[in-house]
Amino acid sequence: MSILIKDVLHQGKPTNVYLEDNLIADIGPVVEADQTIEGNDLALLPGLVNTHTHAAMTLFRSYADDMELHEWLREKIWPIEAKLTPDDIYWGTRLACLEMIRSGTTCFNDMYFHLDMQAKAVQESGIRAVLSEGFIDVMKPEAGEELLTKSMKLIGGVRNLNCDRIKPALGPHALYTVSKQSLERIKEISDDEDLLVHFHLSETKEEVDNCVKENGSSPVRFLEEIGFLGPRLLAAHSVWLDEKEIGILAKADVKISHNPVSNMKLAVGKAIPYSKMRKAGLNISLGTDGCASNNNLDMFESMKFAALLQKHGSNDSTIMPAGEAFQLATVNGAEALGFDAGVIEVGKLADLMLIDTRLPSFHPSHDLISNVVYSANGSCVDTVICDGEILMQEGVVKYQEEIIVGANKAMERLLQDKEG
Amino acid sequence: MSILIKDVLHQGKPTNVYLEDNLIADIGPVVEADQTIEGNDLALLPGLVNTHTHAAMTLFRSYADDMELHEWLREKIWPIEAKLTPDDIYWGTRLACLEMIRSGTTCFNDMYFHLDMQAKAVQESGIRAVLSEGFIDVMKPEAGEELLTKSMKLIGGVRNLNCDRIKPALGPHALYTVSKQSLERIKEISDDEDLLVHFHLSETKEEVDNCVKENGSSPVRFLEEIGFLGPRLLAAHSVWLDEKEIGILAKADVKISHNPVSNMKLAVGKAIPYSKMRKAGLNISLGTDGCASNNNLDMFESMKFAALLQKHGSNDSTIMPAGEAFQLATVNGAEALGFDAGVIEVGKLADLMLIDTRLPSFHPSHDLISNVVYSANGSCVDTVICDGEILMQEGVVKYQEEIIVGANKAMERLLQDKEG
Repeated sequence: MSILIKDVLHQGKPTNVYLEDNLIADIGPVVEADQTIEGNDLALLPGLVNTHTHAAMTLFRSYADDMELHEWLREKIWPIEAKLTPDDIYWGTRLACLEMIRSGTTCFNDMYFHLDMQAKAVQESGIRAVLSEGFIDVMKPEAGEELLTKSMKLIGGVRNLNCDRIKPALGPHALYTVSKQSLERIKEISDDEDLLVHFHLSETKEEVDNCVKENGSSPVRFLEEIGFLGPRLLAAHSVWLDEKEIGILAKADVKISHNPVSNMKLAVGKAIPYSKMRKAGLNISLGTDGCASNNNLDMFESMKFAALLQKHGSNDSTIMPAGEAFQLATVNGAEALGFDAGVIEVGKLADLMLIDTRLPSFHPSHDLISNVVYSANGSCVDTVICDGEILMQEGVVKYQEEIIVGANKAMERLLQDKEG
Repeated sequence: MSILIKDVLHQGKPTNVYLEDNLIADIGPVVEADQTIEGNDLALLPGLVNTHTHAAMTLFRSYADDMELHEWLREKIWPIEAKLTPDDIYWGTRLACLEMIRSGTTCFNDMYFHLDMQAKAVQESGIRAVLSEGFIDVMKPEAGEELLTKSMKLIGGVRNLNCDRIKPALGPHALYTVSKQSLERIKEISDDEDLLVHFHLSETKEEVDNCVKENGSSPVRFLEEIGFLGPRLLAAHSVWLDEKEIGILAKADVKISHNPVSNMKLAVGKAIPYSKMRKAGLNISLGTDGCASNNNLDMFESMKFAALLQKHGSNDSTIMPAGEAFQLATVNGAEALGFDAGVIEVGKLADLMLIDTRLPSFHPSHDLISNVVYSANGSCVDTVICDGEILMQEGVVKYQEEIIVGANKAMERLLQDKEG
């Protein structure tokens, strides 16, 4: 299967880009292909990579907003999560994939429940993903080993799908929800089986303070002590870090997923120490977090929030320029998740978006990337290709209506169950 | 001229809304009208009101980003502004109006140069606006009276247009750019002629510190001393205020335009003291500021930034809930600018937007306003009506391509002039 994207804007000039199977095979030539996309007025950019979300929580979009974090979890989110069926996870994840594809995201990193249903939804959607079963054993640490066995069985199931686009990962939820012995076991398994570890780290001050109280050291120091840190660890949030912790994370080559919209909406109280993290050489990428705390999966919006939150927080309008925000959302994310994507180069994965430069947001056209980061939003995406397959063309995604109906039905049933 | 909007979602139910001339004439009935809009799958909401922008600066979208504020002004913005012709202002304002209409804004408050060309562009675009000629005399205070005469002549020209949608206003730029005697004269004229005064107030700490150094008191105190404050004053930004100043502004019934995106992008260093301002009873509305410091005019985005900046800044996720952000962007703005609009009620101006609830952003549909503020962006707007006239229907605005071509040509000429 081959695709020719004809006369598409690439680095400011109309260019032909040729895709073969799932790769960018050539840039420049005029060749015959099985399929041709007319690139006129479209600009070619790498697909966006969302390195932290809980896709199925798209069902809870705008279900409960503007509440205090713990009240929100206890009164609204946890009770309804307890009712989720595998079918709900499937439809929530389908809706999330639909929204991501529509806004130019070709790859995401997920943590939620019913890993098999996440995988089924992702496989059918055509998007690329790292998927993990959320692991929590703090209420019953003695069941940790049993839960891990269950996780590994689910991971085996994902592997058996033989789908190149889907990578299973381990999903220990956070330091305050996973026992020490399970964290140690998860690190071992991660090393033995070459699995990414998706984790929430130092999101709130309360989390850090509690860790110091219980363990005598801050989360990063404690995790270093137990040997949990390493290059396969992707730490979401990572807001409340001191300079020494940044050094520890950098030395261990931990990957950071920054979630500016969620951090601001849930009022975690600080912006990540971006300049120091960057200077330390950390890989920093971007995530939307789940729809319950964002309330969308639009990585364009997250790029703007990331750049503006840094400028605001540091009182410096030059920090995180547009090009850097775009790197966070593309090549850094791809690298963090271990995919050879995120840039338009021969040999890279054909994970791409074509954006419609006819929209007012792109005029005047002083700087395409500034317009992408600061002026446009996810609705500028016209066509999306993932793994060499067209997932959206001219704004049309297959089964959009069916997915929306399915997700709404799932949510209606959940609300009835809750009341019943 | 009458319009029937049939079966449109209004307060959660399919409703008929009948417009006659420029007003909402009836809600509920089935009547014959000159024109019918099928409301299926569309939700009816008041048009958004942008209370602070510099429309023609849309030409400078992404022209110079991520720079230090004063370097940005001195090296990039001021030199190119000095080259602006009346024709450029016309095309820049047309492009701004196009973008605003597309994203559901039906009314805006502008300050820029060549008031006659602003007015021409607004008149042709069909949008509603308060327009002012930016007034700066600090370099040559003795010319203040002459400049004021020029402003009043321009205001006379706008009045002669006899266009109900356009209100002229006075535009003293800021405390640090306008002489004391001109501020006093502007206040007199504003009272005599019932003109709004569009002003930049306490945007940066530097501005406040310089005022204290030069005048012995902070901007608000100084303006109170010279009698400049009053209900016709619309103060953009108003970031660096202490509690006493908030009380002074509230007592004088000054209107506040909050510009969260611009404030964060230019790193003014703080969020507005929203809770205290609200408690004091101030009218707070929302503005995008100009495209050079935003870089779009999407009020949906500004609502989300406003709500999230407050949550972040106050470490309280319950502050400025979605419904409040929506009020800032609608009824508060209309009230601040003196238009009887911003809510869907019989007798109000027919300034409306119809949003496409079929988009994934609106599913599930737990809370329409939460979805509008937190999930959607300006691209969800399907149809816009201003002053009883349809300006956009099913995403189509008249002359969109011609406007984009005109604006790009203006900008190309400006860049050539600059190099020549």
